[in-house]
Amino acid sequence: MVVILKENPNKTQLDSLVKWLENKGIEIHPTVGVHQTILGLVGDTSAIDIDLLNALDIVEDVKRIQEPYKNANRKFHPTDSVVKVGNTQIGGGTLTLIAGPCSVESEEQICSVARSVKASGATILRGGAFKPRTSPYSFQGLRDEGIRLLKVAKEETGLPIVTEIMDASQLDLFEDVDMIQVGARNMQNFELLKLLGHVDKPILLKRGLSATYEELLMSAEYIMAGGNMNVVLCERGIRTFETYTRNTMDVSAVPVLKKLSHLPVVVDPSHSGGRSALVPALSCAAVAAGADGLIIEVHNDPSRALCDGPQSLRPEVFDSLAKKLRVISDVCRSSVNEEEAV
Amino acid sequence: MVVILKENPNKTQLDSLVKWLENKGIEIHPTVGVHQTILGLVGDTSAIDIDLLNALDIVEDVKRIQEPYKNANRKFHPTDSVVKVGNTQIGGGTLTLIAGPCSVESEEQICSVARSVKASGATILRGGAFKPRTSPYSFQGLRDEGIRLLKVAKEETGLPIVTEIMDASQLDLFEDVDMIQVGARNMQNFELLKLLGHVDKPILLKRGLSATYEELLMSAEYIMAGGNMNVVLCERGIRTFETYTRNTMDVSAVPVLKKLSHLPVVVDPSHSGGRSALVPALSCAAVAAGADGLIIEVHNDPSRALCDGPQSLRPEVFDSLAKKLRVISDVCRSSVNEEEAV
Amino acid sequence: MVVILKENPNKTQLDSLVKWLENKGIEIHPTVGVHQTILGLVGDTSAIDIDLLNALDIVEDVKRIQEPYKNANRKFHPTDSVVKVGNTQIGGGTLTLIAGPCSVESEEQICSVARSVKASGATILRGGAFKPRTSPYSFQGLRDEGIRLLKVAKEETGLPIVTEIMDASQLDLFEDVDMIQVGARNMQNFELLKLLGHVDKPILLKRGLSATYEELLMSAEYIMAGGNMNVVLCERGIRTFETYTRNTMDVSAVPVLKKLSHLPVVVDPSHSGGRSALVPALSCAAVAAGADGLIIEVHNDPSRALCDGPQSLRPEVFDSLAKKLRVISDVCRSSVNEEEAV
Amino acid sequence: MVVILKENPNKTQLDSLVKWLENKGIEIHPTVGVHQTILGLVGDTSAIDIDLLNALDIVEDVKRIQEPYKNANRKFHPTDSVVKVGNTQIGGGTLTLIAGPCSVESEEQICSVARSVKASGATILRGGAFKPRTSPYSFQGLRDEGIRLLKVAKEETGLPIVTEIMDASQLDLFEDVDMIQVGARNMQNFELLKLLGHVDKPILLKRGLSATYEELLMSAEYIMAGGNMNVVLCERGIRTFETYTRNTMDVSAVPVLKKLSHLPVVVDPSHSGGRSALVPALSCAAVAAGADGLIIEVHNDPSRALCDGPQSLRPEVFDSLAKKLRVISDVCRSSVNEEEAV
Repeated sequence: MVVILKENPNKTQLDSLVKWLENKGIEIHPTVGVHQTILGLVGDTSAIDIDLLNALDIVEDVKRIQEPYKNANRKFHPTDSVVKVGNTQIGGGTLTLIAGPCSVESEEQICSVARSVKASGATILRGGAFKPRTSPYSFQGLRDEGIRLLKVAKEETGLPIVTEIMDASQLDLFEDVDMIQVGARNMQNFELLKLLGHVDKPILLKRGLSATYEELLMSAEYIMAGGNMNVVLCERGIRTFETYTRNTMDVSAVPVLKKLSHLPVVVDPSHSGGRSALVPALSCAAVAAGADGLIIEVHNDPSRALCDGPQSLRPEVFDSLAKKLRVISDVCRSSVNEEEAV
Repeated sequence: MVVILKENPNKTQLDSLVKWLENKGIEIHPTVGVHQTILGLVGDTSAIDIDLLNALDIVEDVKRIQEPYKNANRKFHPTDSVVKVGNTQIGGGTLTLIAGPCSVESEEQICSVARSVKASGATILRGGAFKPRTSPYSFQGLRDEGIRLLKVAKEETGLPIVTEIMDASQLDLFEDVDMIQVGARNMQNFELLKLLGHVDKPILLKRGLSATYEELLMSAEYIMAGGNMNVVLCERGIRTFETYTRNTMDVSAVPVLKKLSHLPVVVDPSHSGGRSALVPALSCAAVAAGADGLIIEVHNDPSRALCDGPQSLRPEVFDSLAKKLRVISDVCRSSVNEEEAV
Repeated sequence: MVVILKENPNKTQLDSLVKWLENKGIEIHPTVGVHQTILGLVGDTSAIDIDLLNALDIVEDVKRIQEPYKNANRKFHPTDSVVKVGNTQIGGGTLTLIAGPCSVESEEQICSVARSVKASGATILRGGAFKPRTSPYSFQGLRDEGIRLLKVAKEETGLPIVTEIMDASQLDLFEDVDMIQVGARNMQNFELLKLLGHVDKPILLKRGLSATYEELLMSAEYIMAGGNMNVVLCERGIRTFETYTRNTMDVSAVPVLKKLSHLPVVVDPSHSGGRSALVPALSCAAVAAGADGLIIEVHNDPSRALCDGPQSLRPEVFDSLAKKLRVISDVCRSSVNEEEAV
Repeated sequence: MVVILKENPNKTQLDSLVKWLENKGIEIHPTVGVHQTILGLVGDTSAIDIDLLNALDIVEDVKRIQEPYKNANRKFHPTDSVVKVGNTQIGGGTLTLIAGPCSVESEEQICSVARSVKASGATILRGGAFKPRTSPYSFQGLRDEGIRLLKVAKEETGLPIVTEIMDASQLDLFEDVDMIQVGARNMQNFELLKLLGHVDKPILLKRGLSATYEELLMSAEYIMAGGNMNVVLCERGIRTFETYTRNTMDVSAVPVLKKLSHLPVVVDPSHSGGRSALVPALSCAAVAAGADGLIIEVHNDPSRALCDGPQSLRPEVFDSLAKKLRVISDVCRSSVNEEEAV
């Protein structure tokens, strides 16, 4: 951490700052310039609140040198983490396809989609039971009945299931769910994150609409600080000035998060673009960038499209897409590795 | 609502769409152009899911004409709402100052600040008990002890108190709190909003970091749909590309929200700028733009600044600022009204 | 175009609006609702200024249904355009690699890089002669001498050259340049665009840092309206709240622009990420999304890295990357086409 | 400037970096931590290209401590600059109102508006002759005839005139123009800025749609580095995710730019909001935040509103607004100063 002092700092306040830092075990290396003095802080600065330093009268600015996350930091865990989900896994050099409908609607629907995506190579089934909707007047999901239906589909197909939790009070319902999803709008619901830190299930943590990479990793850190190391990061599009796409898929998130962290990174191309016509191109791009997996919305019956979101693919499109993705994954994985070796 | 059809839409699908809409009581007025046909929908379209329409093969685009919020909509409630908070109120042509420390730290601190801001004209006391922090390693607030201390300060000064709730499970602790704050990160914590819709207390709803005006109003609608009409909207800065300020205070939110909705609008200049030096200028700007109130961080002791955020004012600065704000409020309120009359 | 009227519009003003529109050859189809009346306008609305309509007292909102660009619009030119650049081309189902140094520095440097990227499969040489720099104190490029050196490299290798113009007054110097680049900061330098509309050379038009797809296409329209149809669109990263990457590469721009327009689309992964370590992953992603080409910075001498930007690749990294990109291009092109056929 | 080195940096490369910096007259102060070594650079670092340092293999990150602008920097010019414009001035503790129509349309129009805004207290006349329009099919302004008409209005009313230049080739036409405006889209048209650095006229420099404060100040620096110190900065709204307003007026720009720089700061509330109904509230906010002036669009004839943009005020609204603004200016100016004195 580097502290930039204002010109001619008050001596008493400076001494008190230095003493306070030294008490915390920090070594201080000053660099005195003509207009500015900077203090280089050496030691474990992760517990020092950058806002507090910034609040001091004698401080002009504070710049962090070290990342504020530890458990999620690749520097301290150089090898890729592999996260087990039921009978399968995410990470470790394979491409995991998570697929299923936007919302669970009926036993027939979820089982039909589950069989279909399994046949196309998906190894995890997704489906919304609790649905975060902007409007209180929109369909809010089948809730506990939705989770029950997901379990039926799991029994029938053997696919592990992932579904979104929206509130701590719902946790009991997730007992037989294999992976718990935290949605973009809850990425900084810190009370929920703390709770999930004590749960013995893998967590799929979606990036918030306007969350930086560091904030996403700090939210992972909340879960990991509680002891649950099984976190999978998910890029799902960020909010920008461009409104043609619902969100802007930030494909750079894949190589950057994999550089900063050892956690697996998956991408949600369905919500990123918000239009099913974009899903194949965005899926290919995400895998080409090195994603460990994709989470894709697939609906079962074109004639019932009225009840599906605009971002869902038909099973036959998903099937041909899945084949391409595996080829790209093989080509790009070698590409990425060679680059790293340079 | 206007539905723009693709060129040469499939006749069967179009008939089925028309029938579906008519069953929902919607009248349809088609406009046939050379390249495009559009359908004007007349009736209560608030329950029609715009995503569902967009998902149809025959639909190119859907444009909403009417706002999707009802209870919060000024069109249906032309007069300004006034929200009662303990022995005072927000809205109705007066300027309400809400002030207090970032975090509650001790009885001595909160009572001292409370006395001081009351003397300067604040009528509501703020103070954080549950603190949403990006890092799990930062101070998370005194929690229930913090709420207890706020109540002590309330008893001593008579000021009603407002403090932030972070999770539904904390609600019991808020029994003696006069106004419940929903923070920016929880603006779309829909389960929490639904719960607060059934609470008999006014809610201070902060705009999310990347929430549009419409999304903020839809979150207010969640609370109001449950029966709780006492919602105050709060602009607290949005996330943009500019990083010099912590957030970008969107001062336009004040006249726009007051045009779209009848709910009172307050501004938080402390979090918007993230630097105390900016608070006076931003406060003046917000009041000049027509805000019904401000929520400002004030700390009590310059020598203890180490434990306060960089956005907090000293009591004496708050005192002189409060005087100016009242003058501006008087001048601008007449300005705004005259403009409206034109 | 759809015009949404305010409640109870003034009759005289409405009549005058209707007459004004009919004089422009527009047919008007009204839809009368309970709270709102909307007018559907049928005819060529591209010459109607949406801002003028919005300014009317009786108008609440105006929504455009048809895109405001014609020459660039795929609706009116369904087949992909192929743009000739010297002895090669961009578009038409092949992958074009444009490569070269950030700035032209010396004959030895530019010729060495040119030979190297040609050997790796690049078919167009890039290199900056006029450099747009944020600071007046930074190196501004070799200017006319830079263009002279590019021509030397072109003669030696046979590669056509592309370089950036920064002002209309520089045009004479571009006589032997094969393709003229318009940089992101000049995307809305309309006087320059008009001039280039009358030039008999292909234009590489980079998307502005905060330009929407529609604005990029309108800038292409400026050039095409002058008669120059040889425009190649270039995604080079947009400005968002995320600052870890210099810009956020918007990979969705590739499928979206190719859907909206018939013009070829290339991507600049070097400026998008701003870090050379990200270039391979972003390049793979762009090609996987269907880009017609890439423009990549390559520098010749690791020991001279001090004079190269952080986004440049070494020749050997570019060489192995180029091989991968061709494989991905083959796989994804078929993927994209199949999806379109569905 | 602080250079953060990678772990275990190559000794030869480090020596060569140190030598290179010392040759530029920079003193180096290293701070050696467990995981990281940082180099504090003391001296004039404004000529050091931060991108070059970042490109080095041994460098992890570079953080600038000192601002890269000199002439525009308040640190080196502590007193407020006052810029003379014809017979009046901007800055120095007064409020300057610049007003006039969006586009110059006719002698009668511009003279009528000029008389009217002068009567209301405006001291500079604005009006567009060259109009930057997103679409090539929109009205592009009267161009040289527009400038001729502005001069007629100037002669009649005595008001100095400001109008926008769009290309270096137009400069000769601006001989009798009192102040030259650089529009948001040209803020980084560096060739134009360099040219204006050698012109003996004040420049009104508008902030680009996605330009940071630092970039705006660097563009001012381009002009000032050429010798022209008469630059006025103009906030006119930035591009954000919110689309209800055309742009988001960043009112914080006023106190921040005035802190970082000694140059006067004016605000354009007409383009910021893009809706005339917002202009009064935004104008009051800008003045309350400490702006040295406003540039406001005023049109002359409500019945001719069809030819005016939606952001223009009627003269009578401008007149009553101007009265309020002067009161607010007096109140807030004292407010701001007192705060500074604390």
